[in-house]
Amino acid sequence: MALSDLTSYPPPSRRLRLGMVGGGRGALVGHWHWIGARISNRWDLVAGALSADPEVAKASGRDWLLAEDRIYTDFNEMARAEAARSDGIEAVAICTPNVSHRAIAESFMKHGIDIICDKPMTMTPTDSNALIALQAQTGLVFAVTHPYTYHPMARQARQMVARGDVGTIRQCLVEYAQDWATGPEDPNSKPQSWRRDPAKIGRASATGDIGTHCLHMIEFVTGLRVNKLRADFHICGAPKNMEDTAFLSLRFENGAPGSMWLSQAAPGNACGLTFRIFGDKGALYWDQENPEVLRFTPLNQPEQRLIRGHGAGVVPEVERMLRLPRGHGEALSDAWGNLYTEIAIAVEARRLGKNIPPGFLALADVQEGARGVRFIHAAADSHEAGGIWTELS
Amino acid sequence: MALSDLTSYPPPSRRLRLGMVGGGRGALVGHWHWIGARISNRWDLVAGALSADPEVAKASGRDWLLAEDRIYTDFNEMARAEAARSDGIEAVAICTPNVSHRAIAESFMKHGIDIICDKPMTMTPTDSNALIALQAQTGLVFAVTHPYTYHPMARQARQMVARGDVGTIRQCLVEYAQDWATGPEDPNSKPQSWRRDPAKIGRASATGDIGTHCLHMIEFVTGLRVNKLRADFHICGAPKNMEDTAFLSLRFENGAPGSMWLSQAAPGNACGLTFRIFGDKGALYWDQENPEVLRFTPLNQPEQRLIRGHGAGVVPEVERMLRLPRGHGEALSDAWGNLYTEIAIAVEARRLGKNIPPGFLALADVQEGARGVRFIHAAADSHEAGGIWTELS
Amino acid sequence: MALSDLTSYPPPSRRLRLGMVGGGRGALVGHWHWIGARISNRWDLVAGALSADPEVAKASGRDWLLAEDRIYTDFNEMARAEAARSDGIEAVAICTPNVSHRAIAESFMKHGIDIICDKPMTMTPTDSNALIALQAQTGLVFAVTHPYTYHPMARQARQMVARGDVGTIRQCLVEYAQDWATGPEDPNSKPQSWRRDPAKIGRASATGDIGTHCLHMIEFVTGLRVNKLRADFHICGAPKNMEDTAFLSLRFENGAPGSMWLSQAAPGNACGLTFRIFGDKGALYWDQENPEVLRFTPLNQPEQRLIRGHGAGVVPEVERMLRLPRGHGEALSDAWGNLYTEIAIAVEARRLGKNIPPGFLALADVQEGARGVRFIHAAADSHEAGGIWTELS
Amino acid sequence: MALSDLTSYPPPSRRLRLGMVGGGRGALVGHWHWIGARISNRWDLVAGALSADPEVAKASGRDWLLAEDRIYTDFNEMARAEAARSDGIEAVAICTPNVSHRAIAESFMKHGIDIICDKPMTMTPTDSNALIALQAQTGLVFAVTHPYTYHPMARQARQMVARGDVGTIRQCLVEYAQDWATGPEDPNSKPQSWRRDPAKIGRASATGDIGTHCLHMIEFVTGLRVNKLRADFHICGAPKNMEDTAFLSLRFENGAPGSMWLSQAAPGNACGLTFRIFGDKGALYWDQENPEVLRFTPLNQPEQRLIRGHGAGVVPEVERMLRLPRGHGEALSDAWGNLYTEIAIAVEARRLGKNIPPGFLALADVQEGARGVRFIHAAADSHEAGGIWTELS
Repeated sequence: MALSDLTSYPPPSRRLRLGMVGGGRGALVGHWHWIGARISNRWDLVAGALSADPEVAKASGRDWLLAEDRIYTDFNEMARAEAARSDGIEAVAICTPNVSHRAIAESFMKHGIDIICDKPMTMTPTDSNALIALQAQTGLVFAVTHPYTYHPMARQARQMVARGDVGTIRQCLVEYAQDWATGPEDPNSKPQSWRRDPAKIGRASATGDIGTHCLHMIEFVTGLRVNKLRADFHICGAPKNMEDTAFLSLRFENGAPGSMWLSQAAPGNACGLTFRIFGDKGALYWDQENPEVLRFTPLNQPEQRLIRGHGAGVVPEVERMLRLPRGHGEALSDAWGNLYTEIAIAVEARRLGKNIPPGFLALADVQEGARGVRFIHAAADSHEAGGIWTELS
Repeated sequence: MALSDLTSYPPPSRRLRLGMVGGGRGALVGHWHWIGARISNRWDLVAGALSADPEVAKASGRDWLLAEDRIYTDFNEMARAEAARSDGIEAVAICTPNVSHRAIAESFMKHGIDIICDKPMTMTPTDSNALIALQAQTGLVFAVTHPYTYHPMARQARQMVARGDVGTIRQCLVEYAQDWATGPEDPNSKPQSWRRDPAKIGRASATGDIGTHCLHMIEFVTGLRVNKLRADFHICGAPKNMEDTAFLSLRFENGAPGSMWLSQAAPGNACGLTFRIFGDKGALYWDQENPEVLRFTPLNQPEQRLIRGHGAGVVPEVERMLRLPRGHGEALSDAWGNLYTEIAIAVEARRLGKNIPPGFLALADVQEGARGVRFIHAAADSHEAGGIWTELS
Repeated sequence: MALSDLTSYPPPSRRLRLGMVGGGRGALVGHWHWIGARISNRWDLVAGALSADPEVAKASGRDWLLAEDRIYTDFNEMARAEAARSDGIEAVAICTPNVSHRAIAESFMKHGIDIICDKPMTMTPTDSNALIALQAQTGLVFAVTHPYTYHPMARQARQMVARGDVGTIRQCLVEYAQDWATGPEDPNSKPQSWRRDPAKIGRASATGDIGTHCLHMIEFVTGLRVNKLRADFHICGAPKNMEDTAFLSLRFENGAPGSMWLSQAAPGNACGLTFRIFGDKGALYWDQENPEVLRFTPLNQPEQRLIRGHGAGVVPEVERMLRLPRGHGEALSDAWGNLYTEIAIAVEARRLGKNIPPGFLALADVQEGARGVRFIHAAADSHEAGGIWTELS
Repeated sequence: MALSDLTSYPPPSRRLRLGMVGGGRGALVGHWHWIGARISNRWDLVAGALSADPEVAKASGRDWLLAEDRIYTDFNEMARAEAARSDGIEAVAICTPNVSHRAIAESFMKHGIDIICDKPMTMTPTDSNALIALQAQTGLVFAVTHPYTYHPMARQARQMVARGDVGTIRQCLVEYAQDWATGPEDPNSKPQSWRRDPAKIGRASATGDIGTHCLHMIEFVTGLRVNKLRADFHICGAPKNMEDTAFLSLRFENGAPGSMWLSQAAPGNACGLTFRIFGDKGALYWDQENPEVLRFTPLNQPEQRLIRGHGAGVVPEVERMLRLPRGHGEALSDAWGNLYTEIAIAVEARRLGKNIPPGFLALADVQEGARGVRFIHAAADSHEAGGIWTELS
């Protein structure tokens, strides 16, 4: 299917039943899964094991108006009980620290429940391979949540690259900068210390958390794979156990060089995910904190500011994502809405036998999740070897 | 209650049952009412008379997964039937052209259903007075939808003015610029011609549509009423029956001057609602198209860019609105979510007897809706008299 | 001559000899006259009556390395003495408060010296007419200094309007905002109190100072005259004798409406001269504080950011002004350089008999200076009559 | 001397006599040397060997109104003849391709003429050492032209770092992006092919041209030396002999990491020199294309936009550079004016025996020029060795 063939999403047949593991009170990420599901209008959140702490799990379930008997404190129990109900959940969102992703996913997959999993998908490539095998065996939907590629103007960028607007890509810069780890951790705020514990997060911290988003974004938009990289890890904020900053050199499959900068200790930055793509015919720039605008400079012509909305240079393929008109701003909640829309379509297709043209959905699947894990390990390998060039398979 | 007393919204007891009149396929505004209701997680949309055209009404109801027996084609029928159900709607969102607002509101109010009404609330001050009287008699919640004041940084501006950050206000400029009415109407797109038909929209077109938002915003943020104005109406885009552009001079109750510029025929603008407030101690600037940023310049100091999120100068009162952390952008969908949250709290308070401290909610009520209508008439009066100063009561 | 015929300025034959009246130590404006003359490389500043205070005059002359015998304390003496020298000045820059412009100009014109005069040109239309008559009689060059139209991208805007890029102009907004008059005058800084003394500045203060720049700019770029206006004067900063703020409504000769906002009491603004021009085919936006960028939005297309420099959409006619390449920023000093280049070409043409094609130079002449004075009086008339529409001839 | 001791430049005693080698018609750089000298009002350009082509040399000399007998075609002849005149030049600006800098500098130094030399100063460290030795022997002023550090807000950044506003520096990113080398060279425009000829430019092209500016800027502002680096050179634009793009990793003397990106093949960039400095107390951001603004974010506080001008957070030390008030924009011409002012003060001090407090001037001297050359060689060494860490002495 040509990318332009479908300018609207197929309507839902009904709302699907969603469960969540992790994501309760005090957690960050569960909240935007839930907003995304709400905005899509294709899901009802009906069950959850929202915290390992039973009190928090109960309170969190009530916050979201879950029925008391579907507020669980153990994910295995939840998988079993929901699978036994006629109105049991059809998919589960896994919003826990990385270390538990594999076990949770396996538990639900074994009960035939589709998977929506935070990144990084697992701790190790071995863990990833186990999930790849189980997904192949079960045929379940397995979506890894990279919401930033669901901003319409990131999609616009991908389409413009695909149709040749920037010509051959010659270099790319991608970065993701935050500032929350600059100073010492606030003892009164929610502990993020698990993010610096190798037993819970794996071999890299910032690189796993924000670097995997960068990799997915730049590969998604350019259509090019990074096939080797070099990484230096640093602690640029208050002392901690693992890197809060990384500088990476990239080499794309077509030989183009690139760089990736990751930091959680860059004062003045909150969610500064940007890319700059330079080809022989033009360039693209996008910034997640100003997501409605895509800057396009055709070579030797003025910069153009493309804004989400109908017409005015916006590609037809993006139209399926348009809810509010141009200028009536959409942002990250809406991107999560788009992500949960596409996941719902995939789950409906599998469960109800609907046909989705190949290439219509842009979900990061279990293979893409595994690639993120290999990226983390390649970066850690490179760093530990003094920043040498390291293959990324 | 001090504005700072409550930094979080009370949790919902359950989701409320919402109906909608108008807003179906092809309509703009219904969609964002619905997104707001979804994001708030305090409403279920369960019934609708989504279009006067029965086919459109049915298709639209199915889009939103309404039960077949609650897809209506007549609002009176809907009011009657819903009021008769034990699970009938508790509030109705009125998203139709202005001309029908009064009749629809009256129909539902007479059945004890709370009202959520688009602006301008009515065609005439007489109509407004009828609704004021009926609201007083019934004690129902009557919310007029001005979503832009639900952007957290507009709230931030209001709090900063209230605590004296800009000192005494000495002048204000507010504007709302769009471009959709510059060229001839596209015969293939949804007809907006009702927006130029005095029989459907009243005495002013752009002034009613976007001017009422400006008035509400500037009075809301400054805490000052405009007590007289001068208006010149113009047609600056393709020929049409009513104004697409207006230039207004304002006088605030404290004597400060101001201006308001409204245009739907300003190429390059989509939803350019901005305000500039100048006091003797500093200034504030905000732009709806970049809603996360509030620019504050204390006199003789550098400009500060306040960004939505915890800390970093953001006032505690805004915290109740924070869902995503700083930089993880929120925009207009989220503002509608905040609006529907506050409406839900008001409806819950009335129906379940909960107590809401005075000043906690910032809903535009029936009185505020009536003021918007008086503004339209004052502006039209001024214009017709050659742009003379006209009182706004 | 078509505007595009000459893409470079004719080279100078030699540097011309320049004198200055006013502009010494503590003055603002003399300094940038002098920078402009230096950048142009077409002038040597050789004489001056730089202050009415003899000590300041002497010190200021030494600052600028004038010969001792050409540092004057009386402008009449300067005019007489310079006219008597074989190497006497060929033009004089008048940088004094408005009240003295006419007398100084007459003194030098009577000695055959070309005139470079700050705006507003005179206190009254009667004074202006006297200068018009004397200029007509003498044939001298009489240039009024409106430097902002010498920013290359303001020129670019004018050419784009002239060739139809925005179509028929339908509305325009122009403003000039500063903040220096918000608080009480600093007794330690240079007194600006003459700017609020009707005996020295005439009937309007801010309107004369910054409003005349706005009028000249918007008429220059649009090619349209404002033929009536309405004005309200206000004191929005610390108490003072004359207006520091004005809101004006404009009507252009083609019937298009417009507005002008002028304030010296708008915290956060320093030299915020901007224009927005809306036609039926597109729009232009320019901001003096970011002078290298001209924003152009063709109707229904993305905004383009045109940047000063060769190619990339910059019109050939602007090329004559290009000194530094794109991105190697030019700003107000350079604009004054362009102004002094064009004045030098005019003076050379008169004195050396060189031919300048009509339309090649864009100097504001004595007629344009007189129009600025009539604008001030029309605005003051309107204000005093309660803001009624007033003709501008 | 504390950096804050002197808030104004000492006035000139007279204008100094300047010569120029290179920089004639068709050259870029000579022009802005000349504008800088003019703006400073401390120099008269009186002699030149402006081109190796005698016809161009003559025409160029006339453009700038040089006396015929001081238009030279051979720099050795110029050095000899000017040294023999009682009104001979006191300093010479060397604006030729790198390859000739050493010989020209030596020729003039041997005649006792002070040196103003473009960067890179020489082709090799050996050449640099020869100039260091000759400078030490003669005691002449030797200034290397890094104009960007003469933007007042770059100075402001340096002072803010020095007084601790950002705390301990933890990481820095610097970049300089242009686009002129993206497509094939325009055969109709001035050939830049010497910039890709190792015989004329040395071991690196983009790295020498724009990288040396980045190194000087980031070391100047941070007060920290880069003591090792890693470089990868690339050709990202049209095919050519030498690199048009380089990615560098930096290590500062305090251990902080950094990166430098250099490209002349990045569409949409013209003169994009930016730095980002992150410390444990805050961050600074500056962009040469918007030079009036310095963004400062104190940790956990809103970003501040400091604008050039008196007060409003601008440090006293910058005041000496202020010519136009805030908002009355200065840019690169003015920065060159500041550079030529400081060079004049140094030359006057040497020639007239005036005393300049240590640290008052910030000229890049012959040692700094030599460091730039060592940087080029370290980068080329690193690149050739596969991007290994390489010491920078």
